[in-house]
Amino acid sequence: MWIDAVKFDKQGLVPVIAQDADNGRVLMVAYMNADALRETADTGRAVYYSRSRSSLWRKGEESGHIQEIVDIQIDCDGDVLILQVKQAGGIACHTGRNSCFYRSLRDGKWLETEPILKSPDDIYGDK
Amino acid sequence: MWIDAVKFDKQGLVPVIAQDADNGRVLMVAYMNADALRETADTGRAVYYSRSRSSLWRKGEESGHIQEIVDIQIDCDGDVLILQVKQAGGIACHTGRNSCFYRSLRDGKWLETEPILKSPDDIYGDK
Repeated sequence: MWIDAVKFDKQGLVPVIAQDADNGRVLMVAYMNADALRETADTGRAVYYSRSRSSLWRKGEESGHIQEIVDIQIDCDGDVLILQVKQAGGIACHTGRNSCFYRSLRDGKWLETEPILKSPDDIYGDK
Repeated sequence: MWIDAVKFDKQGLVPVIAQDADNGRVLMVAYMNADALRETADTGRAVYYSRSRSSLWRKGEESGHIQEIVDIQIDCDGDVLILQVKQAGGIACHTGRNSCFYRSLRDGKWLETEPILKSPDDIYGDK
């Protein structure tokens, strides 16, 4: 089975990079357990494992910002995955930005480099 | 201090994605401790922490495939970093490929999607 090539850690998790299939932007990093990975492969939508909630996290279930899978890649030693995705709404981050990686180190400080596209209140608040 | 924004795990490590600054390709994922991160920021060259050797790993020290730092990015919750790098020799992976992510899931199997640019024997063998 293809899933046997994935080396889950002692907690049964593997780190997963979600990358925009169109422009290569790294959107976020999350974790999957085997169930999340199987459901992702079966449904074509990103499903992660929430370490804080200890349950499957169907990305976009609340926000609508689902990730459609274009490709699943694995690294040489099998302990990291990349999802090439189409990001609904162009927003992956819970802060309302395109990417979670919106800060760069400049002269010894973290500089914010991208705008909030939609406020978290608008994304999550009215539900 | 900028480094205080980085949330190292219980082992004192943070996962780090090395991404090609020119084309957005994700080259590899490794780990850093605080010393590795400081040295990376100070020297402008990627230094990781080898979990198997339990010591600093100055990328390219043996292979010559160093990574020059173009940018250091941090995610929203501070527990993952991206290095935007210029990859010497165009080879990040110990298998002699450009990227460690050279396998994609196709019809239930992992398909190799990129060539070996230099054999590991040629990279490491004669030293």
